[in-house]
Amino acid sequence: MNDAQRAEDLRQAIAEQRTLASGLFDAMYERSRDVEGVTRAGWSDAEEAGIRLIAKKATELGLEVEFDELGQVYATLPGRDRSLPRVAIGSHFDSVRRGGNYDGYAGVVAGMIVLAAFRARGIAPGPDVTVLGMRGEESVWYGIAYIGSRFVVGDLGWEEFSALTRVDTGERITAHLEKLGYDAAAVRKAAGRARLTTANTRAYLELHIEQGPFLEDAGITLAVPTAIRGNARFPEITCHGRYGHAAAAPVDDRRDAVLASVELIGEFDRFWQEQIRAGVPDTQLTVGRVHTDTDREGLTVVPGECRFSVNFGGTTAEFIEAGCKRLHELAHSIAAKRNVRFDLGHRAGSVPMSLDPVVRRELLDAARALSIPCHEMATAGHDAATFGKAGIPAAMVLVRNQNGSHNPHEAMEIDDFLAGTTVLARTVLHMT
Amino acid sequence: MNDAQRAEDLRQAIAEQRTLASGLFDAMYERSRDVEGVTRAGWSDAEEAGIRLIAKKATELGLEVEFDELGQVYATLPGRDRSLPRVAIGSHFDSVRRGGNYDGYAGVVAGMIVLAAFRARGIAPGPDVTVLGMRGEESVWYGIAYIGSRFVVGDLGWEEFSALTRVDTGERITAHLEKLGYDAAAVRKAAGRARLTTANTRAYLELHIEQGPFLEDAGITLAVPTAIRGNARFPEITCHGRYGHAAAAPVDDRRDAVLASVELIGEFDRFWQEQIRAGVPDTQLTVGRVHTDTDREGLTVVPGECRFSVNFGGTTAEFIEAGCKRLHELAHSIAAKRNVRFDLGHRAGSVPMSLDPVVRRELLDAARALSIPCHEMATAGHDAATFGKAGIPAAMVLVRNQNGSHNPHEAMEIDDFLAGTTVLARTVLHMT
Repeated sequence: MNDAQRAEDLRQAIAEQRTLASGLFDAMYERSRDVEGVTRAGWSDAEEAGIRLIAKKATELGLEVEFDELGQVYATLPGRDRSLPRVAIGSHFDSVRRGGNYDGYAGVVAGMIVLAAFRARGIAPGPDVTVLGMRGEESVWYGIAYIGSRFVVGDLGWEEFSALTRVDTGERITAHLEKLGYDAAAVRKAAGRARLTTANTRAYLELHIEQGPFLEDAGITLAVPTAIRGNARFPEITCHGRYGHAAAAPVDDRRDAVLASVELIGEFDRFWQEQIRAGVPDTQLTVGRVHTDTDREGLTVVPGECRFSVNFGGTTAEFIEAGCKRLHELAHSIAAKRNVRFDLGHRAGSVPMSLDPVVRRELLDAARALSIPCHEMATAGHDAATFGKAGIPAAMVLVRNQNGSHNPHEAMEIDDFLAGTTVLARTVLHMT
Repeated sequence: MNDAQRAEDLRQAIAEQRTLASGLFDAMYERSRDVEGVTRAGWSDAEEAGIRLIAKKATELGLEVEFDELGQVYATLPGRDRSLPRVAIGSHFDSVRRGGNYDGYAGVVAGMIVLAAFRARGIAPGPDVTVLGMRGEESVWYGIAYIGSRFVVGDLGWEEFSALTRVDTGERITAHLEKLGYDAAAVRKAAGRARLTTANTRAYLELHIEQGPFLEDAGITLAVPTAIRGNARFPEITCHGRYGHAAAAPVDDRRDAVLASVELIGEFDRFWQEQIRAGVPDTQLTVGRVHTDTDREGLTVVPGECRFSVNFGGTTAEFIEAGCKRLHELAHSIAAKRNVRFDLGHRAGSVPMSLDPVVRRELLDAARALSIPCHEMATAGHDAATFGKAGIPAAMVLVRNQNGSHNPHEAMEIDDFLAGTTVLARTVLHMT
């Protein structure tokens, strides 16, 4: 076979698994449907049902099935040389509350389809290929992301893990774990020890729906992300001024918290627009919340307080730090000029991470060989970030979706999903 | 007597009424004290108690006492020629909720002290001098200002008046009026007919505490206002954008309601600063309220809506209209640029009014003759505006106060009050 024939053959092999894919999506939807959309919190019964579903199907396909101490599933197709570092294809089962069926889970199904197609055609890859079904990426119950993938790479210690409690009920994560039949003592022993390492894992691949409208609007099927964006988040900045009578307070003796905040946000917005015009890619500034104090505000009252959030992202740590520096400078100079005080409050956020250039090149080449329209762009945070941070070459395929993610109307065409899965399959074969 | 002797004699005559003044202040305070400060809503029992107190004292002083259909009191010292247009000295009884004892009431007491001093010294002015004790200037129950003074000049028709209902209970103003023993049918007949006119009133004088800190800070006892500031008020401007995912929504396809609102407020603030630098006097811009929608906002959500108030003032109608024009222009251009929509909502406010230059000159000359430090400046709205609008020459004396007005800590030195009252007395005598 020449290359074009091999590509067509692989496309066909994946297409033959269409019924399996639809069946896995439908079965998961039935197990986690909510009033609208699906709800599957990490370590909930709904998420556990997904684990069981995939483990059962993997066993039926003759794959080697293992679980780790958190109940995450590993389904492996043995390679020709089992001493070689494996290729992992992973994603997460859990969803946000009333989210869509694909955010996370599509990546697990994609891995299953690749292995099912290889099985059906008798294709034995060089190294082992493991589908990794993880938990607690959205982690709506516990408030910290990537619990499952951090455990896999040994980046989550027992102390941090065992201290996790549900934000709504206060119940410990260990209680939920044991309720599902897992052993907290075993987690204690395993926590902090890496299961996947740079030594035993050649690459981590993840298929995920795009969370924004870009691909859909541009009429492009797939994207290979260049980087996972980081961000700096200031959830509550407070400007402290002084309340006064709007008509009576002398203009040159005011300490107006709103006009000062407006100047700060306006100047920061201007700085951001300059960055974008200067060609900084994949960045954004969002001020999602602004409030004066409902107990003291008034149409005729000089505002003595204004609270707002600031959230901005970028693909390099240098850029994000430059943004923070600018924000501090503006707060300082505007406070001095307008006789107010800015309290920037707590800074949260995540560091950006470049995805592996070699694996990205493989994915792009596969898409080209398969004639599938594919774009390059940065993306939001995913489990891939955890593997990348651990030094494992990580890369992703994004599939266009029709209604954004984290909402019940999230959508994905099965043809687009199969196209992305074919790219994964071709990359696995080409790399190994 | 030469002029200096006459001034000193008048000062002495007013000073002799110090006990009467303190007594009237204390008695009113006792009749309207609240948890802190005083509360006397228009047509409440507390306000009515003030009317009765002043009417009783006026009768004791041998003044002619009358009431109008709203229960407002007129206490007149007959002049030497009763056919001459009278001089009125007036102010209001009502206060804001938990306000101070002086805002409004001090002007009524000042008039009483002037007439008591004239009585005590046997001074008969040329024309009648009438102290006018009015109601419903703050009008916290009914939401529109100057009810009493508008009735006096025939500027309040029955339809508008009888439609007034309490903002808190929904009860009609006519019900409260009748509860106090007044006759709504009589109001119906009298409404819209002027009791004080340009033909029967030579001048309207009003003493009031300053509502801001200027005089206190500057160490000046009194001010004669040049004008009553007007204002334009936009209680709820709404910027309609589109909600989106902060990390996923493409920067060039956002319709961010906060950044658009911030640009509008920031540009308008800049325009205002230019006006002030260019020498426009007595103006201010206040954005007292800003809110994103608490039901939909979020740190990671592009804001689809932002609501805020805009309130600005000035001493000429031309200037205020120029401000409104600028606000509309900015809303138009920023909406086009940022793909949002501004709904400026309802415009409220009041037109500015110059106070009478001849009467102002009389007041300033009186202060100079009495060696009382006196400043010229614009002021916020007072009943004097209503008389000025009706064509009656109106002017005011402001007395410094220590803690601003419309709060329970409002303060005034009795010496400063007597100084302002002496200026009133001298002006009445000098004009007639």
